[in-house]
Amino acid sequence: MDGRDWSKFLLPYEQAVEELKVKFKNLRSELKKRNEYSPIEFVTGRVKRISSILDKAQRLDVPMDQLESGIEDIAGIRIMCQFVEDIKTIADFIQEREDMSVVYIKDYIKNKKESGYRSYHIIVKYPVQTALGSKEVLAEIQIRTLAMNFWATIEHSLNYKYKQSLPDELRMRLSKAAEAAFLLDEEMSSIRDEIMESQQLFEDKSLI
Amino acid sequence: MDGRDWSKFLLPYEQAVEELKVKFKNLRSELKKRNEYSPIEFVTGRVKRISSILDKAQRLDVPMDQLESGIEDIAGIRIMCQFVEDIKTIADFIQEREDMSVVYIKDYIKNKKESGYRSYHIIVKYPVQTALGSKEVLAEIQIRTLAMNFWATIEHSLNYKYKQSLPDELRMRLSKAAEAAFLLDEEMSSIRDEIMESQQLFEDKSLI
Amino acid sequence: MDGRDWSKFLLPYEQAVEELKVKFKNLRSELKKRNEYSPIEFVTGRVKRISSILDKAQRLDVPMDQLESGIEDIAGIRIMCQFVEDIKTIADFIQEREDMSVVYIKDYIKNKKESGYRSYHIIVKYPVQTALGSKEVLAEIQIRTLAMNFWATIEHSLNYKYKQSLPDELRMRLSKAAEAAFLLDEEMSSIRDEIMESQQLFEDKSLI
Amino acid sequence: MDGRDWSKFLLPYEQAVEELKVKFKNLRSELKKRNEYSPIEFVTGRVKRISSILDKAQRLDVPMDQLESGIEDIAGIRIMCQFVEDIKTIADFIQEREDMSVVYIKDYIKNKKESGYRSYHIIVKYPVQTALGSKEVLAEIQIRTLAMNFWATIEHSLNYKYKQSLPDELRMRLSKAAEAAFLLDEEMSSIRDEIMESQQLFEDKSLI
Repeated sequence: MDGRDWSKFLLPYEQAVEELKVKFKNLRSELKKRNEYSPIEFVTGRVKRISSILDKAQRLDVPMDQLESGIEDIAGIRIMCQFVEDIKTIADFIQEREDMSVVYIKDYIKNKKESGYRSYHIIVKYPVQTALGSKEVLAEIQIRTLAMNFWATIEHSLNYKYKQSLPDELRMRLSKAAEAAFLLDEEMSSIRDEIMESQQLFEDKSLI
Repeated sequence: MDGRDWSKFLLPYEQAVEELKVKFKNLRSELKKRNEYSPIEFVTGRVKRISSILDKAQRLDVPMDQLESGIEDIAGIRIMCQFVEDIKTIADFIQEREDMSVVYIKDYIKNKKESGYRSYHIIVKYPVQTALGSKEVLAEIQIRTLAMNFWATIEHSLNYKYKQSLPDELRMRLSKAAEAAFLLDEEMSSIRDEIMESQQLFEDKSLI
Repeated sequence: MDGRDWSKFLLPYEQAVEELKVKFKNLRSELKKRNEYSPIEFVTGRVKRISSILDKAQRLDVPMDQLESGIEDIAGIRIMCQFVEDIKTIADFIQEREDMSVVYIKDYIKNKKESGYRSYHIIVKYPVQTALGSKEVLAEIQIRTLAMNFWATIEHSLNYKYKQSLPDELRMRLSKAAEAAFLLDEEMSSIRDEIMESQQLFEDKSLI
Repeated sequence: MDGRDWSKFLLPYEQAVEELKVKFKNLRSELKKRNEYSPIEFVTGRVKRISSILDKAQRLDVPMDQLESGIEDIAGIRIMCQFVEDIKTIADFIQEREDMSVVYIKDYIKNKKESGYRSYHIIVKYPVQTALGSKEVLAEIQIRTLAMNFWATIEHSLNYKYKQSLPDELRMRLSKAAEAAFLLDEEMSSIRDEIMESQQLFEDKSLI
């Protein structure tokens, strides 16, 4: 690490994550209060740890004075939804917002990763007002179904353990789990219209 | 409805739900801070709506002056976990707690419902301290994997819409989705040991 | 009331209050993390009740179709600080922000109300992103010392009870309390420099 | 420090603070929902920092293996109220609760400290359910008016800066501020009955 004060470096990203979480949670509540279907099931967020930022910078050859533009997911937001179809709706909402601007999109649903990873990532520019003035930061918004998220969380920890050398047996099982997750998403989509209609009728059915 | 003030009737249940949510969320944080595996993924809670309480009382023939003992899920807590194996661990934690006592258990995992519904329910007695003194209320704690929860939420809304007359086509698809959810749980269990070991290594991997 | 759906009318204001609370609380945390003095002690917010909006509209002769521009405090934020001197610092921060614009200022500190009321109000325009698109709403930000706030809360309830006819005896006592609050602020200012220096040293002194 | 894992040492205290905050906040909401006056204005809590625990242990000659019984404020809760009269009401509520037991009371209102410090402290035993089983911890509940709290916060930071040697000039000003705070409480008490009646009428007057 250089002499930089890393905890201060993260401050605007922490702020961005806090604000974005509130905003997407509010979008969900707003739709519920309008008695409309919410494509958002729940929202989480995190700021990348310093050690992970530095690892990634090294891996991607990002110079230390270009971390802010070179590492796009220092601020990370994850939006979970029930149906694959919801992902597009959420992406459209994000495109239309005037408080952030879309930089680019990585569509790992259309282009599933070899490992089985499916998710939809939007990189946005988002301005925060700090004690030192206005500052624009990058944030990565990941949009996924619950099944995609379940699988991805697990793959992430396995890869972390085995680095790039996942044993064949495990790789095969992980791949089977990805198929099961995909199958669940497919079955769900096939009854989606029925479900959406019935959830309109019965909004507060579930534990919140 | 009788002349009762229903919003006051619900006060101790609201309190129970608030406290139980904090307690189970704290159990999760505690385990994380001890660097131990947490069987709890996340926790939600809700108080049953008055109209649903009255519907259920009528359906189960519970007299209006015995709602507190006859309707066991006025206070409801739901604990979601990653693996089927975690359910037992959580149930054991609950048995050992001295701030609540287990009344009885409904195991819909060993005894899957005909519809495909799987979940583990524990009915507990929990004392709350109100402005009017101490009061013991019943609460239902539902423990499920994420896949079980996903399916159950959807089945619940479909049943609500179609009452007891779910069309055959839909019933069949719902049953297929239950199988896909079950399959996902199976695949996950098969790689569980690997995953648990790797999650130990990599605790803060995921977006919180 | 006209046929309008009032709960939907309030949605953008609720969103503004949520976001502004997070933003000012974050400003406080940011300063603490930078080891700088925070002029913000704590932040609260509320959306005006429909009945109060309609009362005020009638009192101020605001036509029903101009509530959004005519009633400036439908979204209300209150920022409490320790010292009279902090109020100016907070006002300067607000002026510099690029996510809201100041419409005008009511300085009831320089121009104390006859009743004894002291407070500093900033009316801002703040854009929120709703499910229906971007929308600019008015919000009132009230900045006060803790002593001013204490007194104002009490005066507010007394006026509500007695409308415009506060008994002389009570008016006199309220005026004495205003003096005591003012005196407390004066004494605090006189030892302010010492205090600010010592609070720097001892940031996490107080219960959060 | 000895070899102890301090972050684990604090876990049950963190849990106690979380639970107690929720419980006292709920008491406030419950009373509001019952349309009764709430003696509780707001509630904060903190866990003492390790360094402060060790300082205090040294100052009070508490052996390192008796910290849990010798330092009574590792878990600290602060309850703020509007009127001096509310303090007694809150203390009575605490005495009657069955989820904690009062160990002893320090009444610095009847027995004001020489410095001018006024506050009411209740030391309680409170059982928490940890992952390792049930555990009883001590907690200190401080009850104060807003004016007492304002003054105490400031005195605390000044004492921290000057240790035991506060300059005479400052000591005198601090004493004057204590008088102003006391005077404010007196004035408030004198109009208390009027205020309580009017706040009943006008419950949601204030920003929350």
